[in-house]
Amino acid sequence: MIIDCHGHYTTAPAPLWEWRKRQVAGQDPGPLRISDDEIRETLEKNQLRIQRERGTDLTFFSPRAGSMEHHVGDARVSEAWSRQCNDLIHRVCSLYPSKFAPVCQLPQSPGVPPENCIPELERCVTELGFIGCNLNPDPSGGWWQAPPLGDRFWYPLYEKLVELEVPAMVHVSSSCNPAFHFTGAHYINADTTAFMQFIQSDLFRHFPTLKFVIPHGGGAVPYHWGRYRGLAQDMGKPPLKELLLQNVFFDTCVYHLPGIELLLKVIPVENILFASEIVGAVRGVDPDTGHYYDDTRRYIDAVPGLSAAGRERIYSGNVGRVYPRFARRSRAISSS
Amino acid sequence: MIIDCHGHYTTAPAPLWEWRKRQVAGQDPGPLRISDDEIRETLEKNQLRIQRERGTDLTFFSPRAGSMEHHVGDARVSEAWSRQCNDLIHRVCSLYPSKFAPVCQLPQSPGVPPENCIPELERCVTELGFIGCNLNPDPSGGWWQAPPLGDRFWYPLYEKLVELEVPAMVHVSSSCNPAFHFTGAHYINADTTAFMQFIQSDLFRHFPTLKFVIPHGGGAVPYHWGRYRGLAQDMGKPPLKELLLQNVFFDTCVYHLPGIELLLKVIPVENILFASEIVGAVRGVDPDTGHYYDDTRRYIDAVPGLSAAGRERIYSGNVGRVYPRFARRSRAISSS
Repeated sequence: MIIDCHGHYTTAPAPLWEWRKRQVAGQDPGPLRISDDEIRETLEKNQLRIQRERGTDLTFFSPRAGSMEHHVGDARVSEAWSRQCNDLIHRVCSLYPSKFAPVCQLPQSPGVPPENCIPELERCVTELGFIGCNLNPDPSGGWWQAPPLGDRFWYPLYEKLVELEVPAMVHVSSSCNPAFHFTGAHYINADTTAFMQFIQSDLFRHFPTLKFVIPHGGGAVPYHWGRYRGLAQDMGKPPLKELLLQNVFFDTCVYHLPGIELLLKVIPVENILFASEIVGAVRGVDPDTGHYYDDTRRYIDAVPGLSAAGRERIYSGNVGRVYPRFARRSRAISSS
Repeated sequence: MIIDCHGHYTTAPAPLWEWRKRQVAGQDPGPLRISDDEIRETLEKNQLRIQRERGTDLTFFSPRAGSMEHHVGDARVSEAWSRQCNDLIHRVCSLYPSKFAPVCQLPQSPGVPPENCIPELERCVTELGFIGCNLNPDPSGGWWQAPPLGDRFWYPLYEKLVELEVPAMVHVSSSCNPAFHFTGAHYINADTTAFMQFIQSDLFRHFPTLKFVIPHGGGAVPYHWGRYRGLAQDMGKPPLKELLLQNVFFDTCVYHLPGIELLLKVIPVENILFASEIVGAVRGVDPDTGHYYDDTRRYIDAVPGLSAAGRERIYSGNVGRVYPRFARRSRAISSS
């Protein structure tokens, strides 16, 4: 079985984006009307087709990351928008329970303590069966004004994540800072930044069961693994493995074979979760290989020296440890 | 011959830092008094010792990057501080002309158009024999308020760089944003960000001979080379090789063998310049190898499949194309 832990509903039906437009314009956005057939169509043409073509089985599915836009409007706007997006993800996963598992957006807002996200998180997890959430370390959208992830500012939300047994993928949204291209700089920088914030913090002493997934192959981290090992050592911290590899996991959204090879060489296989971020940041075909850049399964399958057992861990074996609610959900679905 | 294109005077004598303290406190800092012996001592114990131990020959030497602090004070403060730092680098390189070649700090200041850097750049290059400069894409120190490097805001400075035949290393200074650890996040993010800014820009159509070195192995770029190739392609840009590899070079400040292997696998050997950033970000010994993390020569020497000719290019062969003034300086020194 091949589970993709990182997919966004980038192809959601037009009425969702029109609803959002009305909301941002300050109009009463009214009810959101999308039929099941519209949902099916956007998925059949895109994510489900790609799953079939690439031989993957199930995608952890969350709202479009670039559209979380926590920086737009205030916390109430963010909350109403998050509810719409999460409800739509819930419908997707109810229509195709064996193809998608739901991951929610949080109603974060710049300067607002993240306690405000707890009700929506609880609603998604306990009422709608969500198995994870996306946590934005920079709700300002590229101006980086929130405290680092190791700060107590975030602790009430972490307490709830731990209580609910739900991991967070660290994922920023679009960038309104012209310095940062969103998928080419802001996303990757956020991954790198979050990891260094974890190194600097005491987070995992305080929350030994809290779990984060750092997407996009961990940003720059595996490539600079020696730097991070050395920085932690210079700071008098324990080795990275001890400091945070019980808590921090990396996905495989790295769009070429040498990158994936590096990831598998330096990060223990237990800390790697398969992902491709479809339909996502890079949509083209690599002229050098004739395959889609984001067809990450091909790279994993091609890595020399990766054992069948290691591959199985990346594709599905590790997921239960990070997303315990997914394992329970799968058992419930298969016995129903 | 082994040339290290990236070293900072992190070990400069105490009077320099005391001068700076007085300046920042708003006092008249007075003259800076440092004897040649003090300079020699700080170098003999550190950079020169390390050169000898590791068998490298010459270091491109610039003021401590973390202390450029363009965000402290106004443009006049930045200018006076830059002059002091650059004059000290000049003294180092005059004392040890075969061991160090000078690279200057620019008197950037947040919000100030970079034209203000031209007089100091010209002074350093034409009067003092500097061969390169460090350009900070974020003079605000972690708040990222400057226009992207492709913006015309920067063009007057680029015109001067082209005229003087001087490359710029893209190098931020310390971070006053608590989100960004300086050497663990801000430096690496800046490298990644600059590269993406180059992809988005028309810079090298306008300045076909302008040259940049992206330090720290190019941030996240080589690890995500597929992503960058794909993003450029989705944007309708020519292949990266054509778009910017005549203009953009990467150093080898990557502190483990798998990272260096990746760098050499994806980036053409003509675009790689040897560097270790001594005495720099990571100071410890890797317990797994028994050698210093930043002893990057060991990694280059250990990469399987790198030809002697390729190694020679990285160690010294490529440098003349990027730093034409270095080649001329070397000829002048060897004939004197």
